Amino acid sequence: MNILDIIAKKRDKKELSKEEIDYFISKYISGEITDYQAAALVMAIYINGMNYEETKNLTLAMAHSGKTLDLSDISKTIIDKHSSGGVGDKVTLILMPIVASFGIPVAKMSGRGLGITGGTIDKLESIPGYKTDLSLDEFKKNIKEIGISLIGQTENLAPADKKIYALRDTISCTESIPLIASSIMSKKIAAGANKLVLEVTCGSGAFMKTKEDAETLSKVMSKIGELAGIETVCVITNMEQPIGKNIGNALEVEEALKALQGEMEEDVKEIVLCLGAQIIKLAGISTDIEKNKEMILENLKNGKAYRKFIELIEKQHGNVEYLNHIEKAKQIIPVKADKSGYVEKLRAETIGRAALGLGAGRVKKEDKIDYTCGIVLEKKIWDKVSVGDTLAYVHSNKEENIEEAIEKVKEAYGIAEKEPERYVDILNII
Amino acid sequence: MNILDIIAKKRDKKELSKEEIDYFISKYISGEITDYQAAALVMAIYINGMNYEETKNLTLAMAHSGKTLDLSDISKTIIDKHSSGGVGDKVTLILMPIVASFGIPVAKMSGRGLGITGGTIDKLESIPGYKTDLSLDEFKKNIKEIGISLIGQTENLAPADKKIYALRDTISCTESIPLIASSIMSKKIAAGANKLVLEVTCGSGAFMKTKEDAETLSKVMSKIGELAGIETVCVITNMEQPIGKNIGNALEVEEALKALQGEMEEDVKEIVLCLGAQIIKLAGISTDIEKNKEMILENLKNGKAYRKFIELIEKQHGNVEYLNHIEKAKQIIPVKADKSGYVEKLRAETIGRAALGLGAGRVKKEDKIDYTCGIVLEKKIWDKVSVGDTLAYVHSNKEENIEEAIEKVKEAYGIAEKEPERYVDILNII
Repeated sequence: MNILDIIAKKRDKKELSKEEIDYFISKYISGEITDYQAAALVMAIYINGMNYEETKNLTLAMAHSGKTLDLSDISKTIIDKHSSGGVGDKVTLILMPIVASFGIPVAKMSGRGLGITGGTIDKLESIPGYKTDLSLDEFKKNIKEIGISLIGQTENLAPADKKIYALRDTISCTESIPLIASSIMSKKIAAGANKLVLEVTCGSGAFMKTKEDAETLSKVMSKIGELAGIETVCVITNMEQPIGKNIGNALEVEEALKALQGEMEEDVKEIVLCLGAQIIKLAGISTDIEKNKEMILENLKNGKAYRKFIELIEKQHGNVEYLNHIEKAKQIIPVKADKSGYVEKLRAETIGRAALGLGAGRVKKEDKIDYTCGIVLEKKIWDKVSVGDTLAYVHSNKEENIEEAIEKVKEAYGIAEKEPERYVDILNII
Repeated sequence: MNILDIIAKKRDKKELSKEEIDYFISKYISGEITDYQAAALVMAIYINGMNYEETKNLTLAMAHSGKTLDLSDISKTIIDKHSSGGVGDKVTLILMPIVASFGIPVAKMSGRGLGITGGTIDKLESIPGYKTDLSLDEFKKNIKEIGISLIGQTENLAPADKKIYALRDTISCTESIPLIASSIMSKKIAAGANKLVLEVTCGSGAFMKTKEDAETLSKVMSKIGELAGIETVCVITNMEQPIGKNIGNALEVEEALKALQGEMEEDVKEIVLCLGAQIIKLAGISTDIEKNKEMILENLKNGKAYRKFIELIEKQHGNVEYLNHIEKAKQIIPVKADKSGYVEKLRAETIGRAALGLGAGRVKKEDKIDYTCGIVLEKKIWDKVSVGDTLAYVHSNKEENIEEAIEKVKEAYGIAEKEPERYVDILNII
């Protein structure tokens, strides 16, 4: 077997065998296959595609390219959740304690933010003391003791995915369905999951711009899950506007805390209930989705989910006392409406860029995050506004960043005279 | 402008502008664009193609990526000839002195052999003393004084072509019409040519396996030539069997010498006359192809072409006396027919491999060549043979190489009972 024949096959739109895909992944990791050979093959895959069988084999080869986590001593069923991301996405922070409150083990590794997309790990690190870099032993110990742990991604899981992901970024090969699907699923499989709930966001603020693309990606991931023996549910959500009210790390922790105490924005609630009900179903507790949603509302009401969150923070050395008075940015400036009507557009990407400009995210990997700054949205799509109403608040620690953020927030809002048509947040479940 | 957008455009089957192609070539040469980015773009070009305009722009960008030769002080018309190569191809050795004998300046840079394809420079170096590494000043001085010089390719012509050619080899992107066409033509344009005669070989022993592929490549090159203002004639020749009788460096010089004295194999003669007549036409001497062929035969008969060859060898410090007793290999072993009938096949590639195994060529660039070894074919396609007839002679300096060479030569011959159908050597002129 040699890489020239493998490249030539995909170049000619032929199917690669499991052996050929395994060979490519192992030799690329060992350095015997060069970056330029991998780049040629990745481009051929981008243009000529991969069928389900090939995509499954690529997923499994990447999943097993480094260390894999064995969580079978915790539970036979390890469920993981992934979201393709959105602005203001604090769903993991709310959903995971809810799931754990049902006794379903939560062994979650999350990422850091880059660009306009925030990362759960950064949000948790805004809580003084919270440790995201636990050893794997400590991670598993915590899950056994309190049923939940939430840490950062360790270096050695699915190294082939890491290498190919970085390469794709430099050769204009990011938006490829088989490459996206295998990247998402390989990391989760390497992290020990055998059941998956995948949230595929779509809309102007997401990676998948249209519902059709999101559905294609979802179908591919469901099918790969089936072929790989990983039960997989994909939930397609609308990402036309940011999720919830708050954008920014400490601000999102604050919103999550409120949500766990029952005070939840409608769009957040819809996603949390939907994903949560699917996870409870996958865990084998109940197949009745509506009943599962009610059970979730109950665990929010009775404080079980909230207490699980507090337990998690305490267990990972976070300052629980701090949660009662979460730090605020030095300046909080309202952004006023200069037009009356209805909010018709609230561009997630523009809001994300405004928060990024304030220091809530990273432009480069090495950038430091300013945890307290961000945006709080007072008006969302369908809300009625009058001239002078506060649309949002800019939270900033730096005088010089404020003006640009206000401009961007204004730019993000589209005010129409007529009430815009309603849309749903959950577009499809595959 | 940035490389990500350029890659994405070709990935999506869009046309690249002249500016984008120039940007790619200049930044790849300067190292700002990496090998893996170039590999992704080359693969996208391979799969999605390039139109005439793009191919012309790529050709010119590569031609001007380094030093270019200005031969306008020698003549307004600089004609160059290129062949996509074949086994036993000594056409340049015969044709160039003929051309020079008409007063048409011959400023020829040739390559070295690699694999089964021999190189004119290696053949000339089998003549003791012949210098192939003249300075450019000396090269031009010789052309001015005797009308011909034949040297090796200097390092700094079309460096972008060199870099992309090497890359294509490692990523299964060699057989791409726009990439082949631009590679061939960029080198010739950089070497100062403004009129081109291109021999496109086709058949089992050549790069282009079918007449259709050869015609496509020829059409692309003619069109690029037209767009770039370089008058271009493509001659498609059949490469089902080796050209002429002798394969091997000193052996081919010997055959060329005989040819220049009038004793020429039929297939060699057909190609030499065809290419030569086209060159005379391009030079503006006469547009009558048949008349040009007669003029060539005349200059062979009257010794003008032969004397020009001797003049060339002398001028480049070769030992002319040696040409009267060209050195032979230590052992010359006949390969006998074990079947009677007609030669139906004489596989060029297999004969090339036999010669390579004897030391007549290089497997790796660094390999040394054994000048005197090779194969002399006594029977060619359509020849009648009886059991025990000598098909060919193996010329070897190493006992241990002989057996394998004999086996390969036997393997190369296909003997049929019936006389095979005739085919022509010149398939098309475009």
